[in-house]
Amino acid sequence: MEIHYLDNSATTQVSEAAAQAAYRMMRENYGNPSSLHKIGLNAEEAMEEARGIIADSLSTDKKNIYFTSGGTEANNTVLFGVAQALKRRGNRIIVSAVEHSSVYESAKKLSEMAYDVQYAPVDTQGVVDIERFKALLTEKTILVSVMTVNNETGSVQPIERLSKLVHKSCPEALFHTDAVQAYCKIPLKPKKWGVDLMSISAHKIHGAKGCGALYIRDGARILPLLYGGEQQKKLRPGTESAPLIAAFGTAAKEADIAANHAIIQELNAYALERLRQLDGVTVNSPTDALPYIVNISVEGIRSETMLHHLEKSGVYVSSSSACSKGKRSYVLEAMGLPDDRIDSSLRISFSKYNTKEDIDALINGLQSGINNLQKR
Amino acid sequence: MEIHYLDNSATTQVSEAAAQAAYRMMRENYGNPSSLHKIGLNAEEAMEEARGIIADSLSTDKKNIYFTSGGTEANNTVLFGVAQALKRRGNRIIVSAVEHSSVYESAKKLSEMAYDVQYAPVDTQGVVDIERFKALLTEKTILVSVMTVNNETGSVQPIERLSKLVHKSCPEALFHTDAVQAYCKIPLKPKKWGVDLMSISAHKIHGAKGCGALYIRDGARILPLLYGGEQQKKLRPGTESAPLIAAFGTAAKEADIAANHAIIQELNAYALERLRQLDGVTVNSPTDALPYIVNISVEGIRSETMLHHLEKSGVYVSSSSACSKGKRSYVLEAMGLPDDRIDSSLRISFSKYNTKEDIDALINGLQSGINNLQKR
Repeated sequence: MEIHYLDNSATTQVSEAAAQAAYRMMRENYGNPSSLHKIGLNAEEAMEEARGIIADSLSTDKKNIYFTSGGTEANNTVLFGVAQALKRRGNRIIVSAVEHSSVYESAKKLSEMAYDVQYAPVDTQGVVDIERFKALLTEKTILVSVMTVNNETGSVQPIERLSKLVHKSCPEALFHTDAVQAYCKIPLKPKKWGVDLMSISAHKIHGAKGCGALYIRDGARILPLLYGGEQQKKLRPGTESAPLIAAFGTAAKEADIAANHAIIQELNAYALERLRQLDGVTVNSPTDALPYIVNISVEGIRSETMLHHLEKSGVYVSSSSACSKGKRSYVLEAMGLPDDRIDSSLRISFSKYNTKEDIDALINGLQSGINNLQKR
Repeated sequence: MEIHYLDNSATTQVSEAAAQAAYRMMRENYGNPSSLHKIGLNAEEAMEEARGIIADSLSTDKKNIYFTSGGTEANNTVLFGVAQALKRRGNRIIVSAVEHSSVYESAKKLSEMAYDVQYAPVDTQGVVDIERFKALLTEKTILVSVMTVNNETGSVQPIERLSKLVHKSCPEALFHTDAVQAYCKIPLKPKKWGVDLMSISAHKIHGAKGCGALYIRDGARILPLLYGGEQQKKLRPGTESAPLIAAFGTAAKEADIAANHAIIQELNAYALERLRQLDGVTVNSPTDALPYIVNISVEGIRSETMLHHLEKSGVYVSSSSACSKGKRSYVLEAMGLPDDRIDSSLRISFSKYNTKEDIDALINGLQSGINNLQKR
């Protein structure tokens, strides 16, 4: 059966070139980047080349890029590392109500520890409400974390505006954005935007699972999450995953934001056009969402029921985010969606490898589901 | 030039089968293990198969194995996770004086935080001094961490004995061992030994850098280091590196402890015999060290000088551990070695892929270095 993989925000297939890069590092360039001899230096050079590619992709310098084991570690490093580094300057931490669980749960943990954690509400489009956001900003604020693109809906946050508001009102605060779903999809300019910290991940851009990176502005105060060796200026010790880092660099180099955007925009428009023709389907993503993600609800049919129905015809989508394994979406709740819409929601997410045939298969699957699945 | 890679305790070449397993996961079985559909389930199954192999290799169950990004993360999870979980029961933490930096530096960080950290001294063989160890055990002790095999000398600690002493004297304490250098080299039986927590790593056993695991005994109290999704019972959230986990499982399955031991024992004996014939070479590893590691000093020649001399003939060894990048070894200091011996120390470390020709090349390189390098 043909595969119609429309779950690219959960994870992507690693590109052939990226997988080959990892393979070569495992078999040929297998040294420890910290070893002083040539075999180690060769691995270090490959890793540094990848760091350079990723730095370029964020319009920054290599010295600002720290590799992690993924987006979750990058986000945890920020939340706990900044909270600890700046605890004498204040105790307020603000995160949006629609953050990925790795920010959301870290913030919750901090709220159990003497930090004053505030959740910035979003409007019906999933976008942070600016007036209510402003009202949360105090001099005691040490960290604000708002994601660039939401992983369930594709809603895009006004990062530059939020960052500048924070720096104006909160002299001590660092501004972080989890850009995992935005990276290589829209141009990211942390320096220009006044963003102090930015998390990205390899496996959403056709790199491999187990690798991410954190951008840290020069001079931003943050403590490590891990302690150990001398790697990565001791901010992130531990032998680097040179194979996955090389794959990450390769995937980032392959990503052509503008070309991909054109492909995805066309897929998105076609999908929306065809979805509109189906009875009982509502689009939950805002009209100005990132076109890579389309969140819908199918009236009266639970997400998992439809998900399993679709996979019978080789169509793979998600019920909310993969990380939450079927729990009710707090993201859609924060947008004020009624329970039945939330419980019947599906996330369709594209990559440049998708085609209109994938969307046709999706539409056919949804149509047969609507016709045949028992309504609740 | 032929490569004589004798730095296998820094990292190993990934085996062909393990690299292929990672490659297949990247290209063919690329789903997110948390996704509810078949593509996700396929990735989860591959990951769970690897978990089963690793559990078997430690004579334990799958449910006790948690994947991490490597040994450093596993060790940090233990140090910070147990310290936090048991802080109401006591505040003493004991680590040996020769732990890997990921335990040592984590302990140092905890000592800055209201924990009473004690360092158990070692004898001239690098083995924990039992009487002085006993004297450190108090009712307030919540965690003891002693590595199974030292990464610089190969010294083997009496883990079962230490663990049982701890459980006898310290009712609240958990016993952890960093078994990164021991895994797949000697049989490890955490359950039988009374070990509550054990760290292992893939890249020391011909798996890939960026993957490790933590054994946690049923009911051992530990908090996560990372917060986020539902993965790994929330003890270690974040999308698992399914490619590296599959490679880890493959490498663990390939490892034949007894067969490899025979190969390494022979290499070790041959190396020691030939080293003995060199003027000015002293062996720092104890006679009952793990045969995979031979630590030597070459009189009057600094470690790095000799290391770079050896690499000219394709021989790759280490000056102390790779993670410390040329800093003076605190491990050899703790064993009471004089400074000149420490500053001229080299670590030779074997894998099953080494041959006597590698050792001949090493000996020739050492001999020419002794003859020609300027003494300090």
